Amino acid sequence: MGRRRALRLALILFGSTALYFVPAPAGLDPRAWSLFAIFLGVIALVVASVVPIVLAALLGTAAAVLTGTLTGKEAYAGFSEDFILLIVSAFVISRAMLESGLGARIAWFIIRRLGKSTLGLAYSVLLTDLLIASAFPSNTARSSIFFPVLKAICVSQGSLPGEPSRLRLGRYLMMSSMAGISLSSALWLTAMAGNLGGAKIASEHGVHVTFGSWALAASVPVLACAALVPWLLFRVMKPEVQHTPDAPEQARAALAALGPMKRLEIITLVVFTVMVALWALSSVWKLDRTAVAFLGLAVLLLTGAYPRDGFKREGEALEIWLWFALLYTLSTQLNTLGFMRWLGGGVSAGTAGLPPPVVYVLLTLAYVAIHYFFVSQSAHLLALAGVFLQVAVTAGVAPALISYQLLFATNYFSCLTPQGSSANVLFVGSGYLTTSEVYRFGGLVTAVNTAVFLTLGSAWFLLVA
Amino acid sequence: MGRRRALRLALILFGSTALYFVPAPAGLDPRAWSLFAIFLGVIALVVASVVPIVLAALLGTAAAVLTGTLTGKEAYAGFSEDFILLIVSAFVISRAMLESGLGARIAWFIIRRLGKSTLGLAYSVLLTDLLIASAFPSNTARSSIFFPVLKAICVSQGSLPGEPSRLRLGRYLMMSSMAGISLSSALWLTAMAGNLGGAKIASEHGVHVTFGSWALAASVPVLACAALVPWLLFRVMKPEVQHTPDAPEQARAALAALGPMKRLEIITLVVFTVMVALWALSSVWKLDRTAVAFLGLAVLLLTGAYPRDGFKREGEALEIWLWFALLYTLSTQLNTLGFMRWLGGGVSAGTAGLPPPVVYVLLTLAYVAIHYFFVSQSAHLLALAGVFLQVAVTAGVAPALISYQLLFATNYFSCLTPQGSSANVLFVGSGYLTTSEVYRFGGLVTAVNTAVFLTLGSAWFLLVA
Repeated sequence: MGRRRALRLALILFGSTALYFVPAPAGLDPRAWSLFAIFLGVIALVVASVVPIVLAALLGTAAAVLTGTLTGKEAYAGFSEDFILLIVSAFVISRAMLESGLGARIAWFIIRRLGKSTLGLAYSVLLTDLLIASAFPSNTARSSIFFPVLKAICVSQGSLPGEPSRLRLGRYLMMSSMAGISLSSALWLTAMAGNLGGAKIASEHGVHVTFGSWALAASVPVLACAALVPWLLFRVMKPEVQHTPDAPEQARAALAALGPMKRLEIITLVVFTVMVALWALSSVWKLDRTAVAFLGLAVLLLTGAYPRDGFKREGEALEIWLWFALLYTLSTQLNTLGFMRWLGGGVSAGTAGLPPPVVYVLLTLAYVAIHYFFVSQSAHLLALAGVFLQVAVTAGVAPALISYQLLFATNYFSCLTPQGSSANVLFVGSGYLTTSEVYRFGGLVTAVNTAVFLTLGSAWFLLVA
Repeated sequence: MGRRRALRLALILFGSTALYFVPAPAGLDPRAWSLFAIFLGVIALVVASVVPIVLAALLGTAAAVLTGTLTGKEAYAGFSEDFILLIVSAFVISRAMLESGLGARIAWFIIRRLGKSTLGLAYSVLLTDLLIASAFPSNTARSSIFFPVLKAICVSQGSLPGEPSRLRLGRYLMMSSMAGISLSSALWLTAMAGNLGGAKIASEHGVHVTFGSWALAASVPVLACAALVPWLLFRVMKPEVQHTPDAPEQARAALAALGPMKRLEIITLVVFTVMVALWALSSVWKLDRTAVAFLGLAVLLLTGAYPRDGFKREGEALEIWLWFALLYTLSTQLNTLGFMRWLGGGVSAGTAGLPPPVVYVLLTLAYVAIHYFFVSQSAHLLALAGVFLQVAVTAGVAPALISYQLLFATNYFSCLTPQGSSANVLFVGSGYLTTSEVYRFGGLVTAVNTAVFLTLGSAWFLLVA
């Protein structure tokens, strides 16, 4: 650990400890204040990138339990939340989509149909993404399906990473796909690991979000952005290659090389289709979504579509489960102990007199802008969505309106910075994009997304939510 | 999947489904009967080695929830049980002991002192094992510390795997170490993943097991067996090399090559020492053991003693967490719903009139013998300990007596068969032991262990428990 990081760590630990010993403000449960001091320290560690997020979460939880601020039972409750288990199992399951080759086959299939022009290529990748995202809660895993396919196309068109030729085609396609993932993640409740956590937070404010209601609310603004963004980037980035007559041919060759669908691909396709159908029907038929995912995973394991030694490589899922459940629990306990309500009341005093629509817009813009400071979409959500929701509701904003806006924003702001989402990593590191380009074009995409979701989106949410 | 396995799978699924639709016997909650049918199917899948244990657990849980036998909340409760989280984090933490090299250093250190004779070597390995096991809940990870150290010594003495020379030294040392792990696991509450689960099961029968009470109860019979078993195996297996004057020299060379303790080793040593001390004091100081483990893991992560990319390789911990928590929950729900009590009453009718000491001995022998059918110690525990405890208590056996006996048996029977514990794998696969030798000598060790624990052990438990 470098000297500067050690210094920042010491400062944050000291600040958090000092805050812990400040007496609680009048009207606030002292436990809520203690937990706030600990939680603020955790978020500061995450935002300042001082330590890995899992370390911050473990440290915060240990502090909360060992100081008696939370009981063990309270602090560990998140691990058996069904939506978190759903995230973990769906994350694990997505390996079958990746390793069976089904994901790449679908991508090539759509490129064969729509890939004749550069713009057509961009739209076909986005369309594939929108389609498969419903059963693919790891946007990072999705990026690793598209990246190799796109890179193969770029190289075949003579557009090479780290060279001037990157401007020919690669720079545009990589940026456009990265932007696309920020939209596909927003379309489905099950398209990004954090979405289910957001839905749970919304439910604490009385907004009941289901698979169907999420998709309905997201549909109009997501499709509008999906229509707009690839075209806009095309105009701004001006790729030199505008026609790719070879791409469909290349797709045909790739598909021919893949041969007919293999047994494991068919099994994967069937299991995912049934699973998504059952998730969509879960609120009607009263099915437990997590149990459906467990069953899906069991079938994939039984048939070998999920590789027998696959678990050995799921360490990342363990890490996500640990920090996500711990941060989620810290954040919800802060709410349970009354901190959010107290803070909401305080902030609302500052926004008193402002009309609810102004509060709504200001909070949304602030929520998006703050993503400059966050490395993880889910950490951002768990740290702030609850507070922002509470403040908006206290100021008179309709709970459903602000809930959907913040839930979708957690996705549509993902390409604001290179480190804004782990799904960006492959594209950012591809050699086709410079860091400053990601800031520039990613900022543009996020601005467009925010504008569409605030205008068209808000109108639509008021209509359907 | 082979035809025979598919057939067995179909038979088990059919049998379990048929049993599910049989009306519940009078006096038993229908939900308890349904869960019993599902649980029996899961255990049959595990025992018949038809599918991996995690698959059986996922399938059983999905079936229980989707049939409405359990709610999701009930079925997933195990994931936030603090003792299961303690298992998972301690399992993860043990990587620091392994990768820092501290474990191997301790082994070499003790061999340097005690390794002059073959018998001395065996005792020194066992002593090391007994010492480090308190902070090392993965007996499999411990086996992977001792195995390379032992193999280096055997090869240097000209005892090679898969050759007649294996009889010179290797066969004896491998068998003795494997037997040693069955004892070191029994000595500490935190020495084997399943032990905490066993303590939780005992607590449901009113027997409160702490780190200290476990160690006290285990101490006398474990140390007696530890004194007896290496000597007995030495007499029976007759290794041709009886003196190893070079081993201390070899240890000295290995230690010299390691150089002075490295920074990460020192950190690991300090963290483990503090952690074990806090675990031992947890019931006095009212410390949450899981939070202590979280804190330990955080410190190891922060200092780099736990490798930064370590989580990527912890997929196995995820797998254990999944199946252990799910099986544990299925088993405890069976108890909660009254099945164990009902079954205990039924079986007790059969043992009516038998004096409690006879029931106690018979149940212990049966519990040990049934391990011939189980691949995992923890699965055996979760499947049977609850029932055996209930039957014994109903028949008038003192709860503490039977609890400790079964908890320790879950460890001391581990080398009954080659597949009786995952800690056996390295030794069994070493080429120094044939399968039939493992059955023969492992059976002998288990018989000796059982005899000591039933006689000396029982007397001691009655005295201290």
